[in-house]
Amino acid sequence: MLGLMQDQPLLISSLIEFAEKHHGDGEIVSRRVEGDIHRTDWATVAKRSRQVARALDAWSLAHGDRVATLAWNGYRHLELYFGVSGSGRVLHTINPRLIPEQIAWIANHAEDQVLCFDMTFLPIIEKIHAQCHTVRHWVALCEAEALPKDAGIPNLVSYEAWMGSQPQTYDWPVFDENSASSLCYTSGTTGNPKGALYSHRSTILHAYASALPDVMAISARDSILPVVPMFHVNAWGIPYSAALTGAKLVFPGGQLDGQSVYELIEAEGVTFAAGVPTVWQMLLTHMLPKGLKFSTLQRTVIGGSACPPAMIDAFRDDYGVDVLHAWGMTELSPLGTLCTLKNKHLKLPAEQQMKIRLKQGRAIYGIDMKIVNDQGQPQPHDGQTYGDLLVRGPWVIREYFKGEGGSPLQDGWFPTGDVATIDADGFMQITDRTKDVIKSGGEWISSIDVENIAMAHPSVAMAACIGVFHPKWDERPVLVVVKKPDAAVSRDELLAFYEGKIAKWQVPDDVIFVDAIPLGATGKMQKNRLREQLHDYKLPA
Amino acid sequence: MLGLMQDQPLLISSLIEFAEKHHGDGEIVSRRVEGDIHRTDWATVAKRSRQVARALDAWSLAHGDRVATLAWNGYRHLELYFGVSGSGRVLHTINPRLIPEQIAWIANHAEDQVLCFDMTFLPIIEKIHAQCHTVRHWVALCEAEALPKDAGIPNLVSYEAWMGSQPQTYDWPVFDENSASSLCYTSGTTGNPKGALYSHRSTILHAYASALPDVMAISARDSILPVVPMFHVNAWGIPYSAALTGAKLVFPGGQLDGQSVYELIEAEGVTFAAGVPTVWQMLLTHMLPKGLKFSTLQRTVIGGSACPPAMIDAFRDDYGVDVLHAWGMTELSPLGTLCTLKNKHLKLPAEQQMKIRLKQGRAIYGIDMKIVNDQGQPQPHDGQTYGDLLVRGPWVIREYFKGEGGSPLQDGWFPTGDVATIDADGFMQITDRTKDVIKSGGEWISSIDVENIAMAHPSVAMAACIGVFHPKWDERPVLVVVKKPDAAVSRDELLAFYEGKIAKWQVPDDVIFVDAIPLGATGKMQKNRLREQLHDYKLPA
Repeated sequence: MLGLMQDQPLLISSLIEFAEKHHGDGEIVSRRVEGDIHRTDWATVAKRSRQVARALDAWSLAHGDRVATLAWNGYRHLELYFGVSGSGRVLHTINPRLIPEQIAWIANHAEDQVLCFDMTFLPIIEKIHAQCHTVRHWVALCEAEALPKDAGIPNLVSYEAWMGSQPQTYDWPVFDENSASSLCYTSGTTGNPKGALYSHRSTILHAYASALPDVMAISARDSILPVVPMFHVNAWGIPYSAALTGAKLVFPGGQLDGQSVYELIEAEGVTFAAGVPTVWQMLLTHMLPKGLKFSTLQRTVIGGSACPPAMIDAFRDDYGVDVLHAWGMTELSPLGTLCTLKNKHLKLPAEQQMKIRLKQGRAIYGIDMKIVNDQGQPQPHDGQTYGDLLVRGPWVIREYFKGEGGSPLQDGWFPTGDVATIDADGFMQITDRTKDVIKSGGEWISSIDVENIAMAHPSVAMAACIGVFHPKWDERPVLVVVKKPDAAVSRDELLAFYEGKIAKWQVPDDVIFVDAIPLGATGKMQKNRLREQLHDYKLPA
Repeated sequence: MLGLMQDQPLLISSLIEFAEKHHGDGEIVSRRVEGDIHRTDWATVAKRSRQVARALDAWSLAHGDRVATLAWNGYRHLELYFGVSGSGRVLHTINPRLIPEQIAWIANHAEDQVLCFDMTFLPIIEKIHAQCHTVRHWVALCEAEALPKDAGIPNLVSYEAWMGSQPQTYDWPVFDENSASSLCYTSGTTGNPKGALYSHRSTILHAYASALPDVMAISARDSILPVVPMFHVNAWGIPYSAALTGAKLVFPGGQLDGQSVYELIEAEGVTFAAGVPTVWQMLLTHMLPKGLKFSTLQRTVIGGSACPPAMIDAFRDDYGVDVLHAWGMTELSPLGTLCTLKNKHLKLPAEQQMKIRLKQGRAIYGIDMKIVNDQGQPQPHDGQTYGDLLVRGPWVIREYFKGEGGSPLQDGWFPTGDVATIDADGFMQITDRTKDVIKSGGEWISSIDVENIAMAHPSVAMAACIGVFHPKWDERPVLVVVKKPDAAVSRDELLAFYEGKIAKWQVPDDVIFVDAIPLGATGKMQKNRLREQLHDYKLPA
């Protein structure tokens, strides 16, 4: 027997309609590529999203056709989020930090019909447009006057001229909630990138879940700074959950340096910010010498890679900001867990709370997870036993776009490629990536544990731990370190720093000082490139 | 083109699985009918829910068969919530405050196969069991020893003997998320009650939405006291949203007097409580003379009927508790709006904030609403113009069980029977029920406005305003008042109390003092019965 409730599909268009109707004057503030601060509101974004939808109709784009963006976080990008997906097309956000050849490869693989880009990225488009065989229209996200006259890009239009001439009324189409809404490629460290094709249903469910009090806790009283880019996993879904709640959005554009981010937080009364650790490191580095404080910031969600404990301490003790650890993946829309304490933890001493805060957190309802051993057997949730982390849920992919790589699922579960523990309270902790864990004499050493200790040393700016071949132990850990400017620390001092913090056999065999550690397009350390660079390195005898 | 996300139906069984796995030791505390305090946890509730499912299998109940409850808020009722719906049957919660004949009528209309009841309600069952033609099994929610030997009820079993003998393992079935999950009859003031048949999908979406920061803001750190009964619209969905977040639940059983509720709040560290105004009035009446305060309570959600401003003031100023106004209906699962302030309201002076707090609140994402005039034309959202309130959304009914009353929808919108305004910020305010509004000389007088003013008078315990026939003005308002114990106030004093608070023509023509105002099964004033009682009343000349 079926229930007798109204049959309404979960569609992204209903988010922008809701925001317009109930939060029309809710602010959207953007630092533009032009350098100025632009102010608009949800009602205007809604109107302009409808203009985008009409402009795509005028180009006869079909339901499901891909419209790509190569853009920073900003109001025009937000309008595309709703105008493209809301009208039934698929928003394909491309990461501009990829090398141009990869961008062209992705645009061809996705069969993008339209590509919208910030003027910052004109040089990339000039380089690749001839290789993008499916793109029929190029849209520069600028005023008509700013359009380059002689860029040599065929069918190039300015965004404002293109959509600005359309009427502001539009009836959003109603269709199957399982229709594709957006496409994001993983920044695969090996092989070609693979696309995660989200649906309207998965996006709405993720938006509900990610706004919950135990997740990002988003309300109409928030002013949100998504430093995490809209070109990567939809800025953790914040554009959607902000529309769902009517929150204020503050977009940093391309200026992610400490000073620019700090100024925006203070000027726009930001209460909540989300980003990867490297961005927060730049922010703290800017604030510390000037003695700056936050006047409105209450909490940050940090994800993308494990967050050094020293940074969590600094945010809380020196700045009064609650740092919440998150974990997710492109294949998870992206949120899987968030680290908010339970009631029984609130009375624990600070250092015991910190042990919990360092974990990636508890599963959000909608995400089911388990850890398994090499034979696929579930491992106990005791906080000690580690295993490969598998997840499933309505916002987890079942396969990649065009079936690339075959079916990734194992008995309906998606293998994350992470090694983790889960404790009795459900808190998951990543101990390593399956490919980064260091196997020494039959035991596993977590490269992340080794790095976190190094990051707590006052002279260390960045640290990576990698396994190096050893004739007896198979692999031994080696620490690669970037020192802070003007800091002086020796190999032996660093190795001594591990005493009492980790078992002796887990202490690295050596320290290598470098000027920089290669970072990927999403700010993560690229250990495979580091291993290549250290190909000829030999362990000390 | 469809997205490539995992296809997982939204099922109620996944809530209890989630709570068990991630919040197994989360507490469930119940004041039992037996009088004692019973303690259990989510893991145990999950195990026993599976036993309930198996016990229903053993009785060969089919998918969609109705299992009725006549029970207070407590852990066994919670186990039935998950065991019945999770296994694909329909949980039919019956309101025990209805008269026995109506209960029998509803059980027959729903074609209940099983009826589970608290021992409090044994007298009702003894009276009606012979009239309930479809009920094959009667389950007394008690230990085997407590089962009455000679009640004369065929096939009567104790809950503990019935489900306690079943294994604790069970694989929850997977089925269409649009399957019926639970059934609740409206306490229709006219005609027979009509059933709202919820689905798994509508229940899960409502659970996500109602836990949001701008709605009930439910987290794993909460200890929740649902005073609002589980036999009426699923206690506003709190059992589901508590499982979704792992919150602690505190059940008051049948003891809703001020002292019992107060003791439970203090003993169990309750942070959030939900109920109708009459319950909170009893609580404050208990606390005031003793000078009692709350040590953990942070917020209450008040709904079911309009909340007197004096009560909101008392909670905030005297007890430090934030009172949130809510509005909903059986046909809405039940939540439609909640009154949480926006960022721009936070700096307003207290009295201006109060004007907003008195409204029923903003639509929750998922609920769309509009106000229309007699011709069905949408009215402006200016906070002044009133109209009939219509709603739509995935947790709004499209028709009643068995199609009773025909299709209630108007062009896809559900007419709520409320008259309301909506302001530019989306805050909705009920000005009256369509049938209670007093039409005087072509103008409408809100009976609720008139009552709220009376409730602010220190001598008034309860007040109802009804329209009485008038030869010239069609109708004129008359105030019916229950005085507080030992309070003395005259007709003329009360009428003078309206001066400057309301337009002169809106002031009631008379005051009638009574010992009690009839209340319905959900605690609402029954104005139709009041009108009957005052049938022979004549307005003063």
